[in-house]
Amino acid sequence: RRCGFTEVVYCEGKSVGSVVEIFKSLSGHGQHCLGTRVSTEQATALTEYFPEIIYNKTARTVRLPRTNQAGTPVERVGKVSLLTAGTSDLPVAEEARETLFWMDCEVDLIVDIGVAGPHRLQEQVHRLQDSDAVIVVAGMEGALPSVVGGYVDCPVIAVPTSVGYGTSFGGVTALLGMLNSCASNVTVVNIDAGFKGGYVAGLITHRIAKARKG
Amino acid sequence: RRCGFTEVVYCEGKSVGSVVEIFKSLSGHGQHCLGTRVSTEQATALTEYFPEIIYNKTARTVRLPRTNQAGTPVERVGKVSLLTAGTSDLPVAEEARETLFWMDCEVDLIVDIGVAGPHRLQEQVHRLQDSDAVIVVAGMEGALPSVVGGYVDCPVIAVPTSVGYGTSFGGVTALLGMLNSCASNVTVVNIDAGFKGGYVAGLITHRIAKARKG
Amino acid sequence: RRCGFTEVVYCEGKSVGSVVEIFKSLSGHGQHCLGTRVSTEQATALTEYFPEIIYNKTARTVRLPRTNQAGTPVERVGKVSLLTAGTSDLPVAEEARETLFWMDCEVDLIVDIGVAGPHRLQEQVHRLQDSDAVIVVAGMEGALPSVVGGYVDCPVIAVPTSVGYGTSFGGVTALLGMLNSCASNVTVVNIDAGFKGGYVAGLITHRIAKARKG
Amino acid sequence: RRCGFTEVVYCEGKSVGSVVEIFKSLSGHGQHCLGTRVSTEQATALTEYFPEIIYNKTARTVRLPRTNQAGTPVERVGKVSLLTAGTSDLPVAEEARETLFWMDCEVDLIVDIGVAGPHRLQEQVHRLQDSDAVIVVAGMEGALPSVVGGYVDCPVIAVPTSVGYGTSFGGVTALLGMLNSCASNVTVVNIDAGFKGGYVAGLITHRIAKARKG
Amino acid sequence: RRCGFTEVVYCEGKSVGSVVEIFKSLSGHGQHCLGTRVSTEQATALTEYFPEIIYNKTARTVRLPRTNQAGTPVERVGKVSLLTAGTSDLPVAEEARETLFWMDCEVDLIVDIGVAGPHRLQEQVHRLQDSDAVIVVAGMEGALPSVVGGYVDCPVIAVPTSVGYGTSFGGVTALLGMLNSCASNVTVVNIDAGFKGGYVAGLITHRIAKARKG
Amino acid sequence: RRCGFTEVVYCEGKSVGSVVEIFKSLSGHGQHCLGTRVSTEQATALTEYFPEIIYNKTARTVRLPRTNQAGTPVERVGKVSLLTAGTSDLPVAEEARETLFWMDCEVDLIVDIGVAGPHRLQEQVHRLQDSDAVIVVAGMEGALPSVVGGYVDCPVIAVPTSVGYGTSFGGVTALLGMLNSCASNVTVVNIDAGFKGGYVAGLITHRIAKARKG
Amino acid sequence: RRCGFTEVVYCEGKSVGSVVEIFKSLSGHGQHCLGTRVSTEQATALTEYFPEIIYNKTARTVRLPRTNQAGTPVERVGKVSLLTAGTSDLPVAEEARETLFWMDCEVDLIVDIGVAGPHRLQEQVHRLQDSDAVIVVAGMEGALPSVVGGYVDCPVIAVPTSVGYGTSFGGVTALLGMLNSCASNVTVVNIDAGFKGGYVAGLITHRIAKARKG
Amino acid sequence: RRCGFTEVVYCEGKSVGSVVEIFKSLSGHGQHCLGTRVSTEQATALTEYFPEIIYNKTARTVRLPRTNQAGTPVERVGKVSLLTAGTSDLPVAEEARETLFWMDCEVDLIVDIGVAGPHRLQEQVHRLQDSDAVIVVAGMEGALPSVVGGYVDCPVIAVPTSVGYGTSFGGVTALLGMLNSCASNVTVVNIDAGFKGGYVAGLITHRIAKARKG
Ligand SMILES: Nc1ncnc2c1ncn2[C@@H]1O[C@H](COP(=O)(O)O)[C@@H](O)[C@H]1O
Ligand SMILES: Nc1ncnc2c1ncn2[C@@H]1O[C@H](COP(=O)(O)O)[C@@H](O)[C@H]1O
Ligand SMILES: Nc1ncnc2c1ncn2[C@@H]1O[C@H](COP(=O)(O)O)[C@@H](O)[C@H]1O
Ligand SMILES: Nc1ncnc2c1ncn2[C@@H]1O[C@H](COP(=O)(O)O)[C@@H](O)[C@H]1O
Ligand SMILES: [Mg+2]
Ligand SMILES: [Mg+2]
Ligand SMILES: [Mg+2]
Ligand SMILES: [Mg+2]
Ligand SMILES: [Mg+2]
Ligand SMILES: [Mg+2]
Ligand SMILES: [Mg+2]
Ligand SMILES: [Mg+2]
Repeated sequence: RRCGFTEVVYCEGKSVGSVVEIFKSLSGHGQHCLGTRVSTEQATALTEYFPEIIYNKTARTVRLPRTNQAGTPVERVGKVSLLTAGTSDLPVAEEARETLFWMDCEVDLIVDIGVAGPHRLQEQVHRLQDSDAVIVVAGMEGALPSVVGGYVDCPVIAVPTSVGYGTSFGGVTALLGMLNSCASNVTVVNIDAGFKGGYVAGLITHRIAKARKG
Repeated sequence: RRCGFTEVVYCEGKSVGSVVEIFKSLSGHGQHCLGTRVSTEQATALTEYFPEIIYNKTARTVRLPRTNQAGTPVERVGKVSLLTAGTSDLPVAEEARETLFWMDCEVDLIVDIGVAGPHRLQEQVHRLQDSDAVIVVAGMEGALPSVVGGYVDCPVIAVPTSVGYGTSFGGVTALLGMLNSCASNVTVVNIDAGFKGGYVAGLITHRIAKARKG
Repeated sequence: RRCGFTEVVYCEGKSVGSVVEIFKSLSGHGQHCLGTRVSTEQATALTEYFPEIIYNKTARTVRLPRTNQAGTPVERVGKVSLLTAGTSDLPVAEEARETLFWMDCEVDLIVDIGVAGPHRLQEQVHRLQDSDAVIVVAGMEGALPSVVGGYVDCPVIAVPTSVGYGTSFGGVTALLGMLNSCASNVTVVNIDAGFKGGYVAGLITHRIAKARKG
Repeated sequence: RRCGFTEVVYCEGKSVGSVVEIFKSLSGHGQHCLGTRVSTEQATALTEYFPEIIYNKTARTVRLPRTNQAGTPVERVGKVSLLTAGTSDLPVAEEARETLFWMDCEVDLIVDIGVAGPHRLQEQVHRLQDSDAVIVVAGMEGALPSVVGGYVDCPVIAVPTSVGYGTSFGGVTALLGMLNSCASNVTVVNIDAGFKGGYVAGLITHRIAKARKG
Repeated sequence: RRCGFTEVVYCEGKSVGSVVEIFKSLSGHGQHCLGTRVSTEQATALTEYFPEIIYNKTARTVRLPRTNQAGTPVERVGKVSLLTAGTSDLPVAEEARETLFWMDCEVDLIVDIGVAGPHRLQEQVHRLQDSDAVIVVAGMEGALPSVVGGYVDCPVIAVPTSVGYGTSFGGVTALLGMLNSCASNVTVVNIDAGFKGGYVAGLITHRIAKARKG
Repeated sequence: RRCGFTEVVYCEGKSVGSVVEIFKSLSGHGQHCLGTRVSTEQATALTEYFPEIIYNKTARTVRLPRTNQAGTPVERVGKVSLLTAGTSDLPVAEEARETLFWMDCEVDLIVDIGVAGPHRLQEQVHRLQDSDAVIVVAGMEGALPSVVGGYVDCPVIAVPTSVGYGTSFGGVTALLGMLNSCASNVTVVNIDAGFKGGYVAGLITHRIAKARKG
Repeated sequence: RRCGFTEVVYCEGKSVGSVVEIFKSLSGHGQHCLGTRVSTEQATALTEYFPEIIYNKTARTVRLPRTNQAGTPVERVGKVSLLTAGTSDLPVAEEARETLFWMDCEVDLIVDIGVAGPHRLQEQVHRLQDSDAVIVVAGMEGALPSVVGGYVDCPVIAVPTSVGYGTSFGGVTALLGMLNSCASNVTVVNIDAGFKGGYVAGLITHRIAKARKG
Repeated sequence: RRCGFTEVVYCEGKSVGSVVEIFKSLSGHGQHCLGTRVSTEQATALTEYFPEIIYNKTARTVRLPRTNQAGTPVERVGKVSLLTAGTSDLPVAEEARETLFWMDCEVDLIVDIGVAGPHRLQEQVHRLQDSDAVIVVAGMEGALPSVVGGYVDCPVIAVPTSVGYGTSFGGVTALLGMLNSCASNVTVVNIDAGFKGGYVAGLITHRIAKARKG
């Protein structure tokens, strides 16, 4: 399991039965769990037991909706911009988005604005201006975070994906590009680690939100 | 130079003359420059021209002190905890610290608390509790960020260093360890990139400080 | 086959028939064999022929129980502590445990005490104090052996596993972390080599036990 | 020396004496030689013998000027745009430029327009429109060719440089980024291979120029 | 999607339905699309809707035929020579050939003339003499572009393939061989990137053709 | 510094002054220090202050002799066999030997018995029979531990060295060979890590010695 | 197919039909073909057409028997010793053996004499003494060629295999060990390249046999 | 020193004194030693003691001339062809040549016939026809052995060199190209291993020569 945050369940390689058991136990302790890397079978079994569970097939996540004491959904705080270079990067972006929803953060998703069509990013740049953090998800040469980093003055969390072929080496090329970004505000997480990208952006957002409340 | 932030001068491979020229020009435009990877010769020449310049020999940085209109030094905001696993990681940590001072952030530096002496970190954990962000600088196996990540709930920015021998591969082993950290709140920058680690922590701190001010 | 210790059969890639033949022949010579990397089919065929055989599905091992001349099971000697960072590391740990049982060593298994939840290890540290050797099984960043190494003064045998994704590179990252451990008492074996980890720990234990007997 | 074009002398590792001998012999056969990777000592010796030789210290090249039968310098044909991401990429760009001059091609050099300052490239884009070929020289993450490729419809020859530190791996990261460019018009040469980049651009230019003449 | 040239559809990982939709939409805008990495299912569905579509099973491409206003097919321009080292390199070569046909370029394909049978290339060398560009597709040691480069004075675009076993490393060895070619006129694209090789050769051809027209 | 055993000083990169200070302080606390990776300058300065210090120039170590309360040297316990494949591996072996002397262990050093002269090892095999542990130091292909492992039934600690050229990759080839040893009793430490190899062998020896005493 | 020797057919990835066609055509020209990497389906189809064909399932080869003009089988010349470290290396050794039979060479195969059981090789050493060449096939750490090289004074052709797990990296570790062999008479071929190993040994044998005949 | 052949002294890293001692001792036992990787200082000292010694500065070798009982030089046997791709490969080729002279073999050296100038090799092919073995020394893309392999039917021993820059990776690219050669008669030795290449060719030559004598 992911260390430190017991309510997130990494479902890869766990049996259907044990995933349901973990969710029962955690929700019994009042925790609104997030599950990542969920298979179709695991999702089906969980939905049977928790009809209210939110399953995102693209993201391969499930999460129990959070409500406040009055039973109304909790409001979302802050704003995270979430960008992808191509359409194939969407599953990783969706994992980040679900993580942010589970953390009650507002998310603005912009898909398929990779660097080789430079006008596509420029048309969207205004949407990034008031973000608490920007997540950039990209495979192949992983160049988008560098360009985005030049437009904003908040942290940019770069998530390399395994999209590509030949020398993309399952995401290593994108990762290396991001680590060597000439933009100073770019930090990096593991390949395909949408959860981690979303989680760190969510932590930043909450700290700013808390400071705003005073 | 680092891209996007014209007041930071990456001095590696620049002639003494041209470094002095850049600093003259930037400070003429009212910018209080930061210089990184500064050689002894470059530092000497800059000190001659700018007697007030702050030269950190370990960090290999120079920076012009910032004053507000009344001529008094600008106050520092927020708090960044800056940890190193060993004493040899100090130069990279000092580069991060100088970057944070240049950004007017408060820094709490704790040196040589690597994982193989577990009591050393435990004795210092209380100092991390109210940090806006934590920077962890480590070479060799790069395990410290994972342990620190389990103690705090703010972003941990991991800076791998080239300290080690044999299969430390000039910092690659530490980098890989950090990217695969089982702590969800750890992001990573390039090997020996103290500047980048400090810069991202500084951005987070300023956003929280600004929110606090309302 | 494993060189030098003919009674251990590496079953990967051997036909069901030839595995049974080898076991028949070895047990005919009075050897109580250990089989590793056993498939379900191989295990079924062996169980049919040797109903008393002990099959560990998680470990993928089989072994014939050892009895002394009086027909009672041989007593276990010494104590090896066997730790895993996560639940997914269990199959490799079980291979080590079965190897130690086959060598008639006492084993104390502690699962899922990875570094990002630092209290989990601390609560168990007292159990390590009187060990002859400690085996630490970990994937991802492979940081656990370094931390454990700081708590004990016996040899720590680190077994990297292929657990992880992206830049975990099938266990290479964990292996590199362990080789670069800042703890002086850590040695390393191949990725997923539970057998080897258990075997070396067993050798150490037996030498100490023999010395105790005088 | 470079294979196939005997008038180009690769001077690295050749003695001063033998370099002078080669130039004497080639110019005696009426060839206006290009020398690359020339040391200061080699350049000094060549200048003594050939006072008209053109030595570019940054490029580390020498070349004998070409004149037509009337003794006037040969006119330059076509246009190659030559871009660098940073100032440190200049030596490699200069090697490309000298190669193009030696091939009698027109060159438009634009320095330091890396992706993290996106406005810098946009301001210069108009200068690329009528190029026969574009050469892009970049180190670190090597993202510039992808962005440039989106603006032009001629071949883009990407030259990775060894500029960077840590995981830039002496230019490998830039090379991989360029090979995985999402722009369809990008081809790649070896790290720091300014000569090759210039040479291929020159070949394209000459074929177009020849076609223009009919 | 491939950036900048919206009429090329990279079909890998897209659903049958969405591929058909993209083709309908693009052809509705008068674009004669090229589709690459097309599966059998995608090809069948497209052929149903566009009976005139040209499907190349080896190349895994589809394209809509282009006609001029009079309804007759557009004439092909220029000449690209397209060589393969072995028969197994054919699929990658076919992807390049289809790309060139889609760009209305003439192609001369010569298969299986690898370096270990030196007479095979020599017998064909006369066919390369009047090419605008030469594409060389090769796996294993990737030596053919170097030899070809010595026979022609136009750009040679080398396309490494994943053909080989053991240390061919899925095309990396061929790629490295090509990047280090001692022939000055060789540039390189990604492993198995037939589309990119064809596209760049097509761009060169069109520029020469345009210049010829004056 | 090496974690956990404060009396071992890793002198690489420390100033002469600070090394002397550390030794003064540690010996003031009654600790008989070991220093590794000691430079000639550091050794000279230490010898001036501690005339009784034992400096091993080949091993690059210094250590203060240990005496019992009566002032006589402490007796050595157990027996570690220490083998090298070649003469060039000696410095790493000497570092291991000094570590073992510092731990008061008996050492039997056998140099230059690499596998390509098979009779050399066979003639010495009898000397290994009663060892508590065997350390094998080897560069190049690192094959010696596998052969030795077949002759003994105690743990074999393999120390790869950076001896070799070309594809020896600074010791990586020897390391990989050792990790993949077909002998079950071989564990491995980092490249050139003579200290670690000696330390682990010393720990095993002491545990056996203690058990012997009862 | 393997280049240069048209009678050897590399069957991997060829259709059953085209393999049969190639064999018909070659045997029609009087060539007694060798086929390598043959699938079961290909073998079945070939056997139907050529009932006399020799199919070795382990080697994955087929070959047409060679007869002299009198119709009797051709006599075998010379002697090649063919050794494997383990049983799992047999398929690669069998490919070498079939290649040697096809070249009419005598072969002495000795299986499973890896280095960790040192007596196994010693008992067989007398069989190597009069060999023209020795082929050593080994996976894992690839140490056997070094030891064998020390016993013989003829060329040793080392064939690394992909046998192993974890850091055996599909044969790369064995390959590196063999390239760095401290025995001077060891040369190396590609991973799993039994054909190449056999072919080179066969060439040496024939040259010696020819010289013997005078 | 090289293992197994005590008369070859690997001088790298040995002191001048100890090299002279080894030569004195070996020549005292009647051995005509070969020394490789000899420094200028070592060569000078050896020449003083053995005025008849043959020092090859390019090859970095020394050897004592061999005479038969009558005091006349021993005749050379067989013929090895020794080819280099470029001039920079000469030192490695010279090491091979000196090794062959020391073994009393005839050598035909042909320099600078790399593949990019295809006519150069063709003009020399006739010189290869009657060789016992061919050695091909090449750096950069290492393509020459494949082409040579297609022209001859004796073993080709490929020696990769560290000549090149960027992605030549110190000879790794040349090595990989040679291992993946599509010519069946190519075997490979370590990078820059001129001695080994020469030694194996010499062994083959002597076996043929011996067979000729009957
Ligand atoms: N997709 C993911 N990638 C990386 N870490 C994750 C992911 N999903 C969950 N985690 C972490 O894994 C832990 C749970 O692991 P487990 O106990 O195996 O379910 C959580 O505390 C998270 O920190
Ligand atoms: N899981 C394992 N990992 C590594 N080595 C093993 C394993 N299981 C058995 N061995 C070794 O393999 C040898 C048996 O191999 P085999 O003769 O192929 O059955 C034994 O002598 C052991 O040393
Ligand atoms: N086989 C291919 N290899 C590399 N790039 C391709 C290939 N096929 C299409 N492309 C590029 O991918 C873009 C379309 O990608 P998509 O929008 O995902 O269909 C096009 O503009 C092309 O530049
Ligand atoms: N040669 C060496 N190789 C690896 N670790 C060492 C070496 N020498 C000392 N150490 C370790 O480094 C620590 C001392 O580091 P330091 O405090 O920097 O002197 C000790 O506790 C040892 O564990
Ligand atoms: Mg896109
Ligand atoms: Mg420390
Ligand atoms: Mg866990
Ligand atoms: Mg710049
Ligand atoms: Mg072919
Ligand atoms: Mg030796
Ligand atoms: Mg075996
Ligand atoms: Mg040349």
